[in-house]
Amino acid sequence: MDPLDLERLLNDVREHRVSPEEALTRLKTLPYEDLGFAKVDHHRALRRGFPEVIFGAGKTADQIGTIVGSIAARGQGVLVTRTNEEAFARVQRDHADARFEAAARCVVLERGTKAALPGRVAIVCAGTSDLPVAEEAAVTAAFLGATVDTVYDAGVAGLHRLLERMTQIRQADAIVVVAGMEGALPSVVAGLVDAPVIAVPTSVGYGAAFQGLAALLGMLTACASGIGVVNIDNGFGAAYLAASILRVKSRSTA
Amino acid sequence: MDPLDLERLLNDVREHRVSPEEALTRLKTLPYEDLGFAKVDHHRALRRGFPEVIFGAGKTADQIGTIVGSIAARGQGVLVTRTNEEAFARVQRDHADARFEAAARCVVLERGTKAALPGRVAIVCAGTSDLPVAEEAAVTAAFLGATVDTVYDAGVAGLHRLLERMTQIRQADAIVVVAGMEGALPSVVAGLVDAPVIAVPTSVGYGAAFQGLAALLGMLTACASGIGVVNIDNGFGAAYLAASILRVKSRSTA
Amino acid sequence: MDPLDLERLLNDVREHRVSPEEALTRLKTLPYEDLGFAKVDHHRALRRGFPEVIFGAGKTADQIGTIVGSIAARGQGVLVTRTNEEAFARVQRDHADARFEAAARCVVLERGTKAALPGRVAIVCAGTSDLPVAEEAAVTAAFLGATVDTVYDAGVAGLHRLLERMTQIRQADAIVVVAGMEGALPSVVAGLVDAPVIAVPTSVGYGAAFQGLAALLGMLTACASGIGVVNIDNGFGAAYLAASILRVKSRSTA
Amino acid sequence: MDPLDLERLLNDVREHRVSPEEALTRLKTLPYEDLGFAKVDHHRALRRGFPEVIFGAGKTADQIGTIVGSIAARGQGVLVTRTNEEAFARVQRDHADARFEAAARCVVLERGTKAALPGRVAIVCAGTSDLPVAEEAAVTAAFLGATVDTVYDAGVAGLHRLLERMTQIRQADAIVVVAGMEGALPSVVAGLVDAPVIAVPTSVGYGAAFQGLAALLGMLTACASGIGVVNIDNGFGAAYLAASILRVKSRSTA
Amino acid sequence: MDPLDLERLLNDVREHRVSPEEALTRLKTLPYEDLGFAKVDHHRALRRGFPEVIFGAGKTADQIGTIVGSIAARGQGVLVTRTNEEAFARVQRDHADARFEAAARCVVLERGTKAALPGRVAIVCAGTSDLPVAEEAAVTAAFLGATVDTVYDAGVAGLHRLLERMTQIRQADAIVVVAGMEGALPSVVAGLVDAPVIAVPTSVGYGAAFQGLAALLGMLTACASGIGVVNIDNGFGAAYLAASILRVKSRSTA
Amino acid sequence: MDPLDLERLLNDVREHRVSPEEALTRLKTLPYEDLGFAKVDHHRALRRGFPEVIFGAGKTADQIGTIVGSIAARGQGVLVTRTNEEAFARVQRDHADARFEAAARCVVLERGTKAALPGRVAIVCAGTSDLPVAEEAAVTAAFLGATVDTVYDAGVAGLHRLLERMTQIRQADAIVVVAGMEGALPSVVAGLVDAPVIAVPTSVGYGAAFQGLAALLGMLTACASGIGVVNIDNGFGAAYLAASILRVKSRSTA
Amino acid sequence: MDPLDLERLLNDVREHRVSPEEALTRLKTLPYEDLGFAKVDHHRALRRGFPEVIFGAGKTADQIGTIVGSIAARGQGVLVTRTNEEAFARVQRDHADARFEAAARCVVLERGTKAALPGRVAIVCAGTSDLPVAEEAAVTAAFLGATVDTVYDAGVAGLHRLLERMTQIRQADAIVVVAGMEGALPSVVAGLVDAPVIAVPTSVGYGAAFQGLAALLGMLTACASGIGVVNIDNGFGAAYLAASILRVKSRSTA
Amino acid sequence: MDPLDLERLLNDVREHRVSPEEALTRLKTLPYEDLGFAKVDHHRALRRGFPEVIFGAGKTADQIGTIVGSIAARGQGVLVTRTNEEAFARVQRDHADARFEAAARCVVLERGTKAALPGRVAIVCAGTSDLPVAEEAAVTAAFLGATVDTVYDAGVAGLHRLLERMTQIRQADAIVVVAGMEGALPSVVAGLVDAPVIAVPTSVGYGAAFQGLAALLGMLTACASGIGVVNIDNGFGAAYLAASILRVKSRSTA
Repeated sequence: MDPLDLERLLNDVREHRVSPEEALTRLKTLPYEDLGFAKVDHHRALRRGFPEVIFGAGKTADQIGTIVGSIAARGQGVLVTRTNEEAFARVQRDHADARFEAAARCVVLERGTKAALPGRVAIVCAGTSDLPVAEEAAVTAAFLGATVDTVYDAGVAGLHRLLERMTQIRQADAIVVVAGMEGALPSVVAGLVDAPVIAVPTSVGYGAAFQGLAALLGMLTACASGIGVVNIDNGFGAAYLAASILRVKSRSTA
Repeated sequence: MDPLDLERLLNDVREHRVSPEEALTRLKTLPYEDLGFAKVDHHRALRRGFPEVIFGAGKTADQIGTIVGSIAARGQGVLVTRTNEEAFARVQRDHADARFEAAARCVVLERGTKAALPGRVAIVCAGTSDLPVAEEAAVTAAFLGATVDTVYDAGVAGLHRLLERMTQIRQADAIVVVAGMEGALPSVVAGLVDAPVIAVPTSVGYGAAFQGLAALLGMLTACASGIGVVNIDNGFGAAYLAASILRVKSRSTA
Repeated sequence: MDPLDLERLLNDVREHRVSPEEALTRLKTLPYEDLGFAKVDHHRALRRGFPEVIFGAGKTADQIGTIVGSIAARGQGVLVTRTNEEAFARVQRDHADARFEAAARCVVLERGTKAALPGRVAIVCAGTSDLPVAEEAAVTAAFLGATVDTVYDAGVAGLHRLLERMTQIRQADAIVVVAGMEGALPSVVAGLVDAPVIAVPTSVGYGAAFQGLAALLGMLTACASGIGVVNIDNGFGAAYLAASILRVKSRSTA
Repeated sequence: MDPLDLERLLNDVREHRVSPEEALTRLKTLPYEDLGFAKVDHHRALRRGFPEVIFGAGKTADQIGTIVGSIAARGQGVLVTRTNEEAFARVQRDHADARFEAAARCVVLERGTKAALPGRVAIVCAGTSDLPVAEEAAVTAAFLGATVDTVYDAGVAGLHRLLERMTQIRQADAIVVVAGMEGALPSVVAGLVDAPVIAVPTSVGYGAAFQGLAALLGMLTACASGIGVVNIDNGFGAAYLAASILRVKSRSTA
Repeated sequence: MDPLDLERLLNDVREHRVSPEEALTRLKTLPYEDLGFAKVDHHRALRRGFPEVIFGAGKTADQIGTIVGSIAARGQGVLVTRTNEEAFARVQRDHADARFEAAARCVVLERGTKAALPGRVAIVCAGTSDLPVAEEAAVTAAFLGATVDTVYDAGVAGLHRLLERMTQIRQADAIVVVAGMEGALPSVVAGLVDAPVIAVPTSVGYGAAFQGLAALLGMLTACASGIGVVNIDNGFGAAYLAASILRVKSRSTA
Repeated sequence: MDPLDLERLLNDVREHRVSPEEALTRLKTLPYEDLGFAKVDHHRALRRGFPEVIFGAGKTADQIGTIVGSIAARGQGVLVTRTNEEAFARVQRDHADARFEAAARCVVLERGTKAALPGRVAIVCAGTSDLPVAEEAAVTAAFLGATVDTVYDAGVAGLHRLLERMTQIRQADAIVVVAGMEGALPSVVAGLVDAPVIAVPTSVGYGAAFQGLAALLGMLTACASGIGVVNIDNGFGAAYLAASILRVKSRSTA
Repeated sequence: MDPLDLERLLNDVREHRVSPEEALTRLKTLPYEDLGFAKVDHHRALRRGFPEVIFGAGKTADQIGTIVGSIAARGQGVLVTRTNEEAFARVQRDHADARFEAAARCVVLERGTKAALPGRVAIVCAGTSDLPVAEEAAVTAAFLGATVDTVYDAGVAGLHRLLERMTQIRQADAIVVVAGMEGALPSVVAGLVDAPVIAVPTSVGYGAAFQGLAALLGMLTACASGIGVVNIDNGFGAAYLAASILRVKSRSTA
Repeated sequence: MDPLDLERLLNDVREHRVSPEEALTRLKTLPYEDLGFAKVDHHRALRRGFPEVIFGAGKTADQIGTIVGSIAARGQGVLVTRTNEEAFARVQRDHADARFEAAARCVVLERGTKAALPGRVAIVCAGTSDLPVAEEAAVTAAFLGATVDTVYDAGVAGLHRLLERMTQIRQADAIVVVAGMEGALPSVVAGLVDAPVIAVPTSVGYGAAFQGLAALLGMLTACASGIGVVNIDNGFGAAYLAASILRVKSRSTA
């Protein structure tokens, strides 16, 4: 039953061709999947104000070009994560203003005026090898409308570099902490701040790092409270969660 | 060097008994651990407005009684998680107004007037076996000052029960979703809401559930965005993170 | 919006107090969760013809007694799996005709006349230690209306005992094969039959059996085709799947 | 002892050159492996009506060409899974009517008229990255004689797209659900249908997806009943099991 | 078709009531499982000369008593492994000459004269905590007819104790090496001897020993050649393999 | 202290230049590593009669050529496992009679007359993908002096092919069973034979096969007795163990 | 051949009853295990100056009493780890001056004057639940002769408490850091000190702590250099390693 | 607040422009991160006397060249581990005296006169495949100022080769033992020496070696005491720990 069917049914009620009782029965048993939820969902997407994000890994440059094209055709911006120069070249062919964030492995296409999210997100990471994930988080958060501060190269083994930046970190409303190896940084940061901490384990390291497992387990069992963990190397997901926390600031209090 | 020492040094400078240059040297080389950080930290704790929480597992009734006593003596409330009737009896001996939240396995002692956090936390769970963890989250969130709505028995296999409650869930500023077995519920919920979702895997299940590992991996790899995961069965940690998200609402925007 | 609201809306359309267009809008945007799906779902449950099954593990005798009572009050039968003598005694207090299947650790309460499923289910297992799981499958399948043949003690290491029973096994429309240790039996059986094979790894064994993991991996990687695997020790789930396969026989062909 | 030997023995009995007693002894002690089971087995294969399927991974184009040739020489069709363009070119050299199903990575060679299986198989999957596995299942099921409906891009995080297609899915007699990442889709589908569900975890995802382990564990511990799980990425196996379920429809009820 | 049926068929051929061709057809298609393999198998068991062994874990004293009784009634001896005093008391009630090997957790009932196996088995272990497994191996090997030498308390960390006993160990035709923790002993022993080494990892140890996993992996990857590994704590299996190696000595060379 | 030193010391004792007491002291404290064990060991190697075997993986063609050259220079044969055409070409440059066993990935250089081991080794495997490992075992066993029978393509899912070959398999004194995927073949074989079975899990398979882990666990937990397991893909190790079992036949019985 | 035999042989040489050549042959072929290495080893033990330590877990009070008795009879002290009150009572029956270190679960019996090791060991731990392991380390180190400083309750989440104690920690020559959960403390400490750090993961924690696995992996992959890790909960092993490092201070420099 | 700010504040106190009380308040609340710890830390680095080490894996030749250049510009030497010929060429362009340690995969640039550490480090390894890790340890230890003895090709399976070298090994103050496969070597060595043993598992091996996991678990559970374990393949970390142990020798005893 699509909207047209529904309209016909309601006209039948109006014209007394169908009794309210029978219409009620038919409506109650109609499969909810026919109510056109795609549209409702679409509205929800628009209401969110978050432009679309594409996971580029495993997609060809052509596929990415096509998807970006179809989104841009609706006048919306788009972010492609886990992608490369080749896909960027393909996107740029049609959209000269697209830009490539090499360190973050992202293609960004901005469209329209983006509503800024209130507050700030801090992205903290320990070392140069975690940078691609941290940058994916930074680019994503900025794309979603957040104001972003980055504090890189602030690892646990060189505690003073972290402590020097704490004032800046404490100003953030959501703190993304990216760390590989033993993943101790989020625990240390969470012990020094009030804001929610989002921990991103990275696959950096070798041997017993087991492609990020050590960092993941370390973050899940962190002795400090107030830490939410995302998947290994998932800089995008951390930024998305951080942005959704910022958005809470602008919600009216129930 | 404690504050008194510092005061004496400054007076020596004032009285020209110590030159600024020498004072500078002594201050620069003084170990930062001597600056009385415990007090600073203490202030930070008070500023947070979160009363203290004790992890009761592995502590005897007597140990718990003593710790609760020393906190209560400072006029503060306290929450004891993962505890039991016996510890409650011991606490109640000294504090008649303590209460035992049996389903949550928590002892609660409220003191003074607690500042209410803005907004609401929703606690969603799939079934009766996840209840202890969900209740730990609910009791903790309430203790930390949050307004809590609970939506229990809303599992993935009976989707309609979840859908019926979505309106209520959508009003929350932070949503704690507790699930064992395959841990699919957070993914479904996150696909239907805007607010940050905190996923708590539980050790419910048998065989390939591997004491919560299946749920944990499921939540970390959820296809929906905006989910932060905490440790298996960590209802307290999820509530703490939720409360820290609510607190973001009352921060002034930088 | 509950059914009463909906009826009122339809009456308003009939009485021209609300135009069909506006009713259409209101219906399209009404949250689908308010359509009373619990009832729809309830109908689906009845249509299935499968009486209810309760997972008894972790529930007290009293909780089980209460749930069984509320189901029996609707005139329906019920099966309780993973339960014990104590829960049975509690159920029997109110329902003298309940019976305890000790080997299967199940309490069964039959009510009304059950529609028999077409065809047969064979339950095959390797040895005495797998019997509790095999019996859980046999009792469940029978409870769901299936005709059940059991072939126990037919392991891989004593191949002749299995071969002797192949004629009987080949008559089944769905074959549940229960095996612990290395879990090789389903692979051998599936190589000798045409019907779908449902493999149940058990936690029987020690050391490298790793509580059923060896059997589980063995079944998933079986070199024979046509095998579906359920969770470790999940005799109930295997029987449920077998019964749903039998039910396919009575569906009209689309 | 091959059939000729056996015939000679029987003639000897007929001609009274060998007593029945002695023939009995010789027959009882003859190793059963000498009875020509290959032929019996061969008959069973023919009776099944399922043409042969070759697992192409790890085989050279030449090896595949030879095997396909020897099967085609017997007038039978053949399906090659996990293969590539190069192997297809080699097969096509000898069999111009072979076809390459690129998305499914399969080479198909149809021969004779295939008996159609009764009923329908639905193949459901969540996203584009699961497509190769879903297509392997679809091509296999069709090759085995099944009528196949595909419902792709119906993931848990966008529930409405799944709900829109439920009517179609509910018509199937066996439902193959393919999902990577957290593998929640089979649980959701199984909660909405009556037919047996066959779950295929895929190796899609990164980090804690652990090459399909997260999806596998999620499916094995799904809270919905009636789900059989096959190996990671095993679209072929799922389709084979689905076809064997359809075949149950045409078996006479014992 | 049992032997009687077969006899009848042969008589029919002799009496020309059934043609050889038809008899051939019927014989070729008769299910091999009807040929009375249990008896053939029984013969094989007798020919082996190994009395029966029962895995006692998970069996009640009564079940063990009954099984032992039925074997003893056939005049055969029996070994019960992984059992306890209670089961022994039950066995002793009927068989006063049964004996309990406490360190090995075995009940032994000898019957008739056992054929001695040629050669010797050495059982080597590192420390007192591995003794139960080593003793299970020693008691089993002796029960199966082997001459057994035990070399206990000869661990890797005190190499000299091992070296002192090498002369004795080198005389064995099969060497069972039992070790927990890092499981290094088999590698050291195999580097010093010519005979086949059977390695038994034990679940002794804690932490990273992971219930025998460390020892198991260590033995499988041992740098010395000529080592076969059995399951964790499987002293019985190692002894059985050792005995089957001794038996090779008495086989005539093909 | 080398033999010359020792001789000098003994001469000193004879000539009364050193008292027996002092010689005793010097002998007792001399480091045992100075007794020339390398030579002793060398004798042991010669006594074994097994020519040397080199693990080729990770070695360059040049390194292999050099090692082979130095062994051949002593007039001994050599086997190189896990190697390739390139290394073979390098070996052949100096040793025209070397041969390359492509399927086994081995280079063989025979020298002198090799003492034949008594008895036979059977190598059984399930399918074409296990062939490289089975062939490594076959080539190694033959190189070590064993008479080898191969039974390939005899998997569990096509049981009849295995049963047809049992007579041949039963003649072996040691049976190497190679299997990937669920690794069920050794269990089936061991249930049908008396000789020791050496099980080799292979890394064949995908998904839940986990690079041979499923097969490994399956073999370790096999329900049949008398199975020793070697490392994944370790055809060489299995053959070495089989050869050492054959050698037991020629030892005089102590 | 024991020393007496050797003496006799040397006398035979002196008396020309045995030629040097023959003596040489006999000496060269004598099994090195007959040279009385146990005594050599005994000397080594004495030279070490470390009294004996018994791992009490899995030993009965009586077994412990006997072993302690036999060591004390030689006039030596002894430490029993992982033991309990009952074993202490048994030891105290014979040795009134034994003492029980309850927090460390150790029985200590001091004898004679112990040589003090040069330098100091610091034992650092994060919280009360790690105390038993930290105390086992502290009691062991003291028993082995080390001067011990303990810094407990200095976890990563409350960094200031650690920083306050750094001066004391920096004075140690070996630092044992005990930590459960995510095991981040050793990394933080090692970044602030020069001395070798010995990290002890503990099994404290739940869920993803996986009985110490998270802490173990975290310590192995720590980003700070100069950390050696011991087994989970192995306080004894850490102290033993620390003591062996202190001993290095008193070795003369080669 | 940097040192200049601090100086100004102290001058203000001296000049009575700021009261000691207010200065105290400002000092107590000043963020400790502003005290210029980087400099303090820098001093600590210089005091250590250890030149800098760069982890080369994942860095481009250019990045390595730049980092090396900036360190050399300060007149300091530098070691680059896990690097290659290409990076060496880049470094050599600017620093002709740099050298490439091919076996260790290290680039070394020596500058100034390095203070020699007291005592010796022994590096022991089992075979040629462990050489790269052993050489990384040897090159690192030498770079840090240690005197290094290497004992390669001394595996457990050829015990005599190890025993022959024990005198040399016993002279070391810290012993690094590198081993792959089952990782038994550290346990054997630690049983024969007094000095601290640092165990390095390597990823050498296949199958159940699981990329070094078997060796890692074996070393952690070694039955000998006094062993500290570092990450898989972490030759650098082992050498760093060894050097820090040597340094303990030159510390004055507190």
